[in-house]
Amino acid sequence: MGVTLLPDLGTQVLIPACAVVGIAFSLIQWLLVSKVKLTPSSEHASAKNGAGKNGFADHLIEEEEGLNDHSIVLKCAEIQTAISEGATSFLYTEYQYVGVFMAAFAVLIFLFLGSVKGFSTKSQPCTYDETKSCKPALATAVFSTISFVLGAVTSVISGFLGMKIATYANARTTLEARKGVGKAFITAFRSGAVMGFLLAANGLLVLFIAINLFKLYYGDDWGGLFESITGYGLGGSSMALFGRVGGGIYTKAADVGADLVGKIERDIPEDDPRNPAVIADNVGDNVGDIAGMGSDLFGSYAESSCAALVVASISSFGINHEFTPMLYPLIVSSVGIIVCLITTLFATDFFEIKAVKEIEPALKRQLIISTILMTVGVAVISWVALPSSFTIFNFGTQKVVHNWQLFLCVAVGLWAGLIIGFVTEYYTSNAYSPVQDVADSCRTGAATNVIFGLALGYKSVIIPIFAIAISIFVSFSFAAMYGIAMSALGMLSTIATGLAIDAYGPISDNAGGIAEMAGMSHRIRERTDALDAAGNTTAAIGKGFAIGSAALVSLALFGAFVSRAGISTVDVLTPKVFIGLIVGAMLPYWFSAMTMKSVGSAALKMVEEVRRQFNTIPGLMEGTAKPDYATCVKISTDASIKEMIPPGCLVMLTPLIVGIFFGVETLSGVLAGSLVSGVQIAISASNTGGAWDNAKKYIEAGVSEHARSLGPKGSDPHKAAVIGDTIGDPLKDTSGPSLNILIKLMAVESLVFAPFFATHGGLLFKFL
Amino acid sequence: MGVTLLPDLGTQVLIPACAVVGIAFSLIQWLLVSKVKLTPSSEHASAKNGAGKNGFADHLIEEEEGLNDHSIVLKCAEIQTAISEGATSFLYTEYQYVGVFMAAFAVLIFLFLGSVKGFSTKSQPCTYDETKSCKPALATAVFSTISFVLGAVTSVISGFLGMKIATYANARTTLEARKGVGKAFITAFRSGAVMGFLLAANGLLVLFIAINLFKLYYGDDWGGLFESITGYGLGGSSMALFGRVGGGIYTKAADVGADLVGKIERDIPEDDPRNPAVIADNVGDNVGDIAGMGSDLFGSYAESSCAALVVASISSFGINHEFTPMLYPLIVSSVGIIVCLITTLFATDFFEIKAVKEIEPALKRQLIISTILMTVGVAVISWVALPSSFTIFNFGTQKVVHNWQLFLCVAVGLWAGLIIGFVTEYYTSNAYSPVQDVADSCRTGAATNVIFGLALGYKSVIIPIFAIAISIFVSFSFAAMYGIAMSALGMLSTIATGLAIDAYGPISDNAGGIAEMAGMSHRIRERTDALDAAGNTTAAIGKGFAIGSAALVSLALFGAFVSRAGISTVDVLTPKVFIGLIVGAMLPYWFSAMTMKSVGSAALKMVEEVRRQFNTIPGLMEGTAKPDYATCVKISTDASIKEMIPPGCLVMLTPLIVGIFFGVETLSGVLAGSLVSGVQIAISASNTGGAWDNAKKYIEAGVSEHARSLGPKGSDPHKAAVIGDTIGDPLKDTSGPSLNILIKLMAVESLVFAPFFATHGGLLFKFL
Repeated sequence: MGVTLLPDLGTQVLIPACAVVGIAFSLIQWLLVSKVKLTPSSEHASAKNGAGKNGFADHLIEEEEGLNDHSIVLKCAEIQTAISEGATSFLYTEYQYVGVFMAAFAVLIFLFLGSVKGFSTKSQPCTYDETKSCKPALATAVFSTISFVLGAVTSVISGFLGMKIATYANARTTLEARKGVGKAFITAFRSGAVMGFLLAANGLLVLFIAINLFKLYYGDDWGGLFESITGYGLGGSSMALFGRVGGGIYTKAADVGADLVGKIERDIPEDDPRNPAVIADNVGDNVGDIAGMGSDLFGSYAESSCAALVVASISSFGINHEFTPMLYPLIVSSVGIIVCLITTLFATDFFEIKAVKEIEPALKRQLIISTILMTVGVAVISWVALPSSFTIFNFGTQKVVHNWQLFLCVAVGLWAGLIIGFVTEYYTSNAYSPVQDVADSCRTGAATNVIFGLALGYKSVIIPIFAIAISIFVSFSFAAMYGIAMSALGMLSTIATGLAIDAYGPISDNAGGIAEMAGMSHRIRERTDALDAAGNTTAAIGKGFAIGSAALVSLALFGAFVSRAGISTVDVLTPKVFIGLIVGAMLPYWFSAMTMKSVGSAALKMVEEVRRQFNTIPGLMEGTAKPDYATCVKISTDASIKEMIPPGCLVMLTPLIVGIFFGVETLSGVLAGSLVSGVQIAISASNTGGAWDNAKKYIEAGVSEHARSLGPKGSDPHKAAVIGDTIGDPLKDTSGPSLNILIKLMAVESLVFAPFFATHGGLLFKFL
Repeated sequence: MGVTLLPDLGTQVLIPACAVVGIAFSLIQWLLVSKVKLTPSSEHASAKNGAGKNGFADHLIEEEEGLNDHSIVLKCAEIQTAISEGATSFLYTEYQYVGVFMAAFAVLIFLFLGSVKGFSTKSQPCTYDETKSCKPALATAVFSTISFVLGAVTSVISGFLGMKIATYANARTTLEARKGVGKAFITAFRSGAVMGFLLAANGLLVLFIAINLFKLYYGDDWGGLFESITGYGLGGSSMALFGRVGGGIYTKAADVGADLVGKIERDIPEDDPRNPAVIADNVGDNVGDIAGMGSDLFGSYAESSCAALVVASISSFGINHEFTPMLYPLIVSSVGIIVCLITTLFATDFFEIKAVKEIEPALKRQLIISTILMTVGVAVISWVALPSSFTIFNFGTQKVVHNWQLFLCVAVGLWAGLIIGFVTEYYTSNAYSPVQDVADSCRTGAATNVIFGLALGYKSVIIPIFAIAISIFVSFSFAAMYGIAMSALGMLSTIATGLAIDAYGPISDNAGGIAEMAGMSHRIRERTDALDAAGNTTAAIGKGFAIGSAALVSLALFGAFVSRAGISTVDVLTPKVFIGLIVGAMLPYWFSAMTMKSVGSAALKMVEEVRRQFNTIPGLMEGTAKPDYATCVKISTDASIKEMIPPGCLVMLTPLIVGIFFGVETLSGVLAGSLVSGVQIAISASNTGGAWDNAKKYIEAGVSEHARSLGPKGSDPHKAAVIGDTIGDPLKDTSGPSLNILIKLMAVESLVFAPFFATHGGLLFKFL
């Protein structure tokens, strides 16, 4: 045991400083994006003044095309406004419903946790050192409720701002595509970075401030302090649940509905303005893939931080009140922001994208650079912010950990994330044989395409699971559950870059949609398509990250829950645990059944409406009449709000019901079962969907001899590929990614309610 | 503790007597089936003699049709011969490969188990009572090897005889269909019963004889005796693995290949004789659904008996050498044979099927009657064959069990099986809304059909898992792992009826195929289609049973393994166990990826060959030239033999690799993980496939207004339904049912090798 090189005051300055730098950086990126003007007049004005980069100087770039076509700029602006309004109105509606739920749940947290000691305001002996006096259980109830609300609000803000930025950037990306693919790429990527840095820095800052404010009350009772802080993770994640599920249903109902009628029945291109569901589809990308995903990753980040902190609070740091090592998890995230900042410059400033084929390597390079830099960063902070050795608790026993061991825990998570990312890429990018095989199987129709696609998804699970298993083994062996939590945080430490890449995808997708709707030239559409194809793969990589980190986070939360509930073993050989395990492993199926059925039903409604409009609005197919976009937006909104409630209840109520009626052992089984089963379905669903999507794009792009033999658009293999793509939509964008949240949220909820379950739970077995 | 009402001598007589009765009954059924003559001349000869029931008297039945058409009878006989020869030749080829594997594995068992005590021939102190002297480890090695070979041979014989009977009965069913649906039903059902009773009685008899012979050597060392007997389960199940996987790939490669070209491209009906893959398809039903399924259920039966016996051997029965209660598991099976015998009479003699709509209720009645009768039977034998209370071991602690508690363990398994059966029926029969909804979703194309079908499969997991969880909880609470094993055996006690119903399906399917190929009238084809539709649902019910019992069996085997390996807790909170759990949960995905890809690849080869024949054989489409059936049979054979090896190795090698390198704790995790994850995929895959199949049949049959609005054959919704059906084929007949074997086999293999792993295993962790 020893002091750290970094003084406590340094920590108090470093963390908020990094967060502020992150926010500042994101504002600068936003400023750069905002320079692309959506008003043709002002563009010309700036060109006249000779001050605007987008004006005169750009006219010299040889790729430029239609830069002076005012009507197109106006049209883009108009479409962007429609998308932005649709997304904003959906999110407002969603937040109203979720707000009611949150208020009710906040009351529940207060009542359940307060009842642990009968709402007594008296101090109680500390759990881990009974000679000392700690704050009453009622304080935990109050502060848990506060941090729950804080987490929920931060999550909402993260998702909402992400959506705002994305809908601000999409038309700008389209307009920049007139000047070349490089310009468009930078606009889309910068916008993604705005979201990534804002979210990472915001999450860190709020958490840091909350800890410091709570400390004013808790003083030396760090156990109580960090237990209360876990509410932050619960708040973040429960918002993410509704964001992911609601947004996921929204986006896929619109997408599937639009495709089924537009592409398959009417044979019009994707994003054709004649399709009544096209605006809803584009709104969906922003509420599902941007706002939903933002909330999701924010949730993971908040939960892994909370898991690490609550476990650390009962280590030697927590007991000896060593502030700097205690906040090591936050320092890792702080350094992550700086690392990601440098990494971003590699994409936007140090190199320039000149051709379509450079896009995907540039995005992949982001992952590699950030991982390498972060490894160095973590090594440094493990050296300066940790004592050379310290003691942690491991389910009743003590364990001495060296700082280099904790460095390895973080590093193994970080690199496992990279491996998962690359495996995901291998299985979902059409540059490699797996997707090409799937595309090839379209020759014999949709059935073989689906069989091969499902098999691909199943197969893609193998290496990620081994990577996760190795991370778990290494980090657990070194530092028990604290190691796991830090490993998860390691995987998430480059979250700003991960999110930037992730958000880049839907922005490019939308940019392509706007280009099509605004009637821009084929050449521009080709550029946005290239951006989008790269985005598809990176979206899959992002999902891989999200799932991998979710697995580690849940395990860490599970460990924290078990500690807090006072369980020392979770023995599979006891019936209470085993039935939990098998029922837990079933829950992801139940949940997926609900979400997939929801997408299916909502899509059917959308299909009916789109068909109705095509049949009843004269001149729609000819392009002389405008479709009624608003009705389609309304159908998606209503369906997703209605349909998100049952799966949401399943996730939120399961831990409560199991904990109250069956007790903490069965709940442990449920958590372990849903974790080990859910992670597999989540990975396979995401990758299957991604592979189908890119198999279709492979046939459409027709880059190789092989691809051309399957095409062109409209050929039988292409039709089979479109069917696969449609099936993959709910798998990869609704049920798959929502499963992350299922496993994380049940774990963090159990953790928050652990004292209540341990005291009052297991009613059924008490009666039997 | 007390003596039992049934004396030991009674037990020694009762068990073989019941087995012999079962065999005799099956022979009588066979005799009745054989009365349907396939040679027109001899039929007439018997008619002239006035002796044959099929001759003169039947001419009076009003439904009769084309009874005197000699050419049709000859054609049926010819097709049957072709199917039978194809199936026999495939099984011979398969058994050659598997024989080599078995021999090698037998050597491995001997070497590994012999090496536990360095091949010493000296007696050793008993594990559970060190004051006594037990047989050497080398004896366990020798007798385990012998029982392994016995189990393998019995499994082969069961599968082979089943196939022989099925291919003997299919054309006879077709011919009987000329006389009406009732006659055809009885022929198909009797043939199924031949297989069911032969298999159940045979399995029981061999096991009983082996125990008595082994006892001559082992004497009072019952621990050693019943540990050696576990080899019987391993032998049975490892044959079943190759039977299920090889047969499953065979049948679906042919089926998918035939459908893709025949139904989708050439628009000719199913089983059309012009389709070159049609014989291979019919052969596949016999080698996959009959021989494979027979081996599978025999394996489950053998394993659950072995699991129950090995756990019982360390109870007070085993220690006090009480023979009758010790053999209680076999007595349950014996009574099961008698109960099933009575049940069968309800289908064949007490009632008569007169209309198509009576078929499904008659089959369902079989399940209900056998369950009710068996409940009474188990109550009686629990009273006469068990002492009023006894002691069992529960991972180091002792537990007193009353005979009524053990009765409840068996009964809960029995009834859980019935519930699983009915839930399966609800989700796969087109009489209920789930399948009708899936059919309805075909309106918007194949994509929504697939999305709804997958969602249905996921949803269908919920109730069966709760049923299994409740069985586990009840039986474990009453009698620990012995309770679980008896619960599994309870579910399997009506195996003869279950198998009869199960085998009935493919026989009817083949009968329909033969009718089509022989060019029989539309009316006859309608009758066989009705038989087949009922068979589809019962096949799904059979799979539900197989999966449910596999889950219980694996858990029982897992418990026995843990006991034998000397582990007292399997704590999820240790990294060794947890990584096992998550990797174990991944294995079913890996395995499914392999099997589905295999089916896909083999089907593609079949498609090419079928297309080639249609393109190069002049007059094939016109029906003037005969296709080359043999090449298609060869493609299926070669593909399935080649493709069954990798998944087979995955299952057989995983326990060995994990046990040797990672040790028994990690292996426990792998077993638990694969169990809880595999059972979900197995159920959902089977039910999804069954639902798609019946959704297609629903549209084709057009019984209701709703169904007619989706049809007729060849409409767009029907085409979408055909795509779903094709995707479902490998799910429901290859990967889904093979997963049963994955989870059972890994468990029984671990059990057999437990002493070796406990002594020499975990090399990797020893080095680290």
